[in-house]
Amino acid sequence: MELIHCTQGKGCFVGPDPEDGGGTPELSASWQLSLIDYLPRAHTWRHFQGSSSDCRYRLHVAMVDPDLLPNREICRNIHQLVTENPAIIANYGPFQGDAELRQALSVYFRERGIAAGAEEVLIASGSQQAIDLVARTFTGPGDTVYMEGPSYSGAIDVFAARGARIVTVPVDHEGMRIDILSQLCDANPPKLIYTVPTFHNPTGTVMSVSRRARLLELAQSYNAIILEDDAFSDTYFRTEPPRTIKSLDRFGHVILVKGFSKILSPGCRVSAIVASGTILNRLIAAKTIADLGSPMLNQKAILPVLQSNLFQRHLKRLRAALKSRRNIALELLKRHAPRGVTWTEPEGGFNIWVTLPEWARATDLYALAQREGVAILPGITCYANEPEHHRFRISYSFMDENSLREAMILLCDVLRRYLANPVPRETPSRPTL
Amino acid sequence: MELIHCTQGKGCFVGPDPEDGGGTPELSASWQLSLIDYLPRAHTWRHFQGSSSDCRYRLHVAMVDPDLLPNREICRNIHQLVTENPAIIANYGPFQGDAELRQALSVYFRERGIAAGAEEVLIASGSQQAIDLVARTFTGPGDTVYMEGPSYSGAIDVFAARGARIVTVPVDHEGMRIDILSQLCDANPPKLIYTVPTFHNPTGTVMSVSRRARLLELAQSYNAIILEDDAFSDTYFRTEPPRTIKSLDRFGHVILVKGFSKILSPGCRVSAIVASGTILNRLIAAKTIADLGSPMLNQKAILPVLQSNLFQRHLKRLRAALKSRRNIALELLKRHAPRGVTWTEPEGGFNIWVTLPEWARATDLYALAQREGVAILPGITCYANEPEHHRFRISYSFMDENSLREAMILLCDVLRRYLANPVPRETPSRPTL
Repeated sequence: MELIHCTQGKGCFVGPDPEDGGGTPELSASWQLSLIDYLPRAHTWRHFQGSSSDCRYRLHVAMVDPDLLPNREICRNIHQLVTENPAIIANYGPFQGDAELRQALSVYFRERGIAAGAEEVLIASGSQQAIDLVARTFTGPGDTVYMEGPSYSGAIDVFAARGARIVTVPVDHEGMRIDILSQLCDANPPKLIYTVPTFHNPTGTVMSVSRRARLLELAQSYNAIILEDDAFSDTYFRTEPPRTIKSLDRFGHVILVKGFSKILSPGCRVSAIVASGTILNRLIAAKTIADLGSPMLNQKAILPVLQSNLFQRHLKRLRAALKSRRNIALELLKRHAPRGVTWTEPEGGFNIWVTLPEWARATDLYALAQREGVAILPGITCYANEPEHHRFRISYSFMDENSLREAMILLCDVLRRYLANPVPRETPSRPTL
Repeated sequence: MELIHCTQGKGCFVGPDPEDGGGTPELSASWQLSLIDYLPRAHTWRHFQGSSSDCRYRLHVAMVDPDLLPNREICRNIHQLVTENPAIIANYGPFQGDAELRQALSVYFRERGIAAGAEEVLIASGSQQAIDLVARTFTGPGDTVYMEGPSYSGAIDVFAARGARIVTVPVDHEGMRIDILSQLCDANPPKLIYTVPTFHNPTGTVMSVSRRARLLELAQSYNAIILEDDAFSDTYFRTEPPRTIKSLDRFGHVILVKGFSKILSPGCRVSAIVASGTILNRLIAAKTIADLGSPMLNQKAILPVLQSNLFQRHLKRLRAALKSRRNIALELLKRHAPRGVTWTEPEGGFNIWVTLPEWARATDLYALAQREGVAILPGITCYANEPEHHRFRISYSFMDENSLREAMILLCDVLRRYLANPVPRETPSRPTL
């Protein structure tokens, strides 16, 4: 008999009943259940490949609408690459990544105040892998890792899998509370501090310039690493955000991860790591162990876009489109959200962080919204330790304006009904995925 | 001043002198040197991105000659994919991999006696990542991992990085010595056994059918996992090798890794993992944590080849070409290698394992050969623990027949000179990379 089995922290699977004992081969595979693994947490997998993906209105994914990306230009490059040099798919690339792409990225970074030569850039397969490479190289069970609470779920998965001690630091309107971080470091010196300083995921806040400087000083005083995750800085709505922490870094404390999935092409799976010295060398070694280097075709595909004026024009259009969608989402929240619900008003990025009254549970809301075809991200997935149950994230980046309007109105309707008539506590409130 | 700095187990880098103390920013980055990392071994990086890559004759890489691969066909597919659906590069794929590719692979595996449905296949970015996913999911500092000694260097790097206790088992003409493994398991029960049973890397041997069956029984009796790395089974020269251990597996003990870099396209970076039950589910979660899934374009690129008759025709041609090169290499060794040198005679795969007299050191030979423009792989990189210094690997798969002839004659010449007049022990014998 096929049943659904649930494992703490990992979600639920369909499969033979493990209680059913010996007999047929399939059932005897129950020996597997006692296998110890090193995956204490796998929320990303659980939340983004489950039934949420079947929802008509996808407010839960911090993905950009494919229609806002320069797909034709990138595909034209790919066409040219495979026409001119079919052997591009018959060779491994350099472990560190394509030299031309690293050169183009060096220019990109220099324009943003980061003096990194091509030799200080390492190509990875998306920000997720970049974060994972840093974590697997420098963090383990003995190490204390600090990060914002809430934070990016995929990064929490990574550091949890390394067995690191994760300490979360609250966020306010100026980003991570460096004063609190500083106190915490007294008791537990940091090995690594993970931060999304610009248009923070999930809250959308921007770390102030003075906090950036203080964070760097703190890392210097502890000989610690800052892992700066910059997915969103190019997607500002009014004025350019403060420069990266990496641009202030003189002694190689900051590892910058720049993903291109949010602004160019998630499908190419290309990100860049900027680091220096032995930190860089060790990360290249880790990339080699992880997968022998990213595919060349995917790296070369985005190269001409980065090298041309098209990139700036594209970013300008992308910013305008995202701003318009942000405005729609905020406008509809203002008009239709019930009393007691509050939210952040991001000046860039993809995300709005919504807070319910303290007694409410976003997972209950999640289940109700899903029935209406609206997917949201329950806030609990964004906390490494004790979660705040009354918060959730919505992303306005993925749906076109009309769908977004419909989704926001539906969501506000569900919100109103939920707060007026909460799900009784007896009902299972855990999302089934 | 730019100097070369060497770190035990990781090789050498050019950079500012860390002894030079404070002063300028670059030099103050010396704090990085005291950062503890989790990379006890990174031989692959060291041996394949160093000066060996500049050699004219590349006998050190177990790569297939790009001219032997169906590049035009794959590139034609890519062209069609980006023309028909430019949004393919604007979306993430499923974490587990493209459903169509998994379906086609299910057929491929069924033809080889492995009854795996599409839902039991997970796509990874090359065999290297597939091995890494298994290692990071199931092995850690408390676990004993068995593997052949010698073995694939990239796999040793992976398990060493996990902090697993690696125990090596000798190999003879029938593959891994299961009798010795069995004795070793009494003292240290296995968590995982990594094996390359078919055209073993680096020795080229094939594990006998009876040993395959005994290995599986052993894994069952210990509730252990077998990680079966099958890169080479399609490249046989006379008769089909025995079926995979996975094809005998009834209770989900075997995780099969099938790479397509050796037979279709290293540049696409596509491999398949076949597993079942909770082992499979945990591997999908690990893949998600590692990089959110492999790029769709790369997966779709090889799909039509796998689905068509072209694949069988291509494999037939590939086998003939490799056999011809193997014959050239063996023929020239027979004719020109000095007395005291012996080698394996593989019936498939890419590699010949050469043994020098016991007093000799392959790293000395490596340095001498490199001066003549010939790169070989010193055997020490293939051992997890105490290495055998007098062995090395050559691969006949990468160079065309004429270059291969020149390379083999040059190598035999260096061999003769080295054995007649060994490098004095005082000379540094460690390869500088």
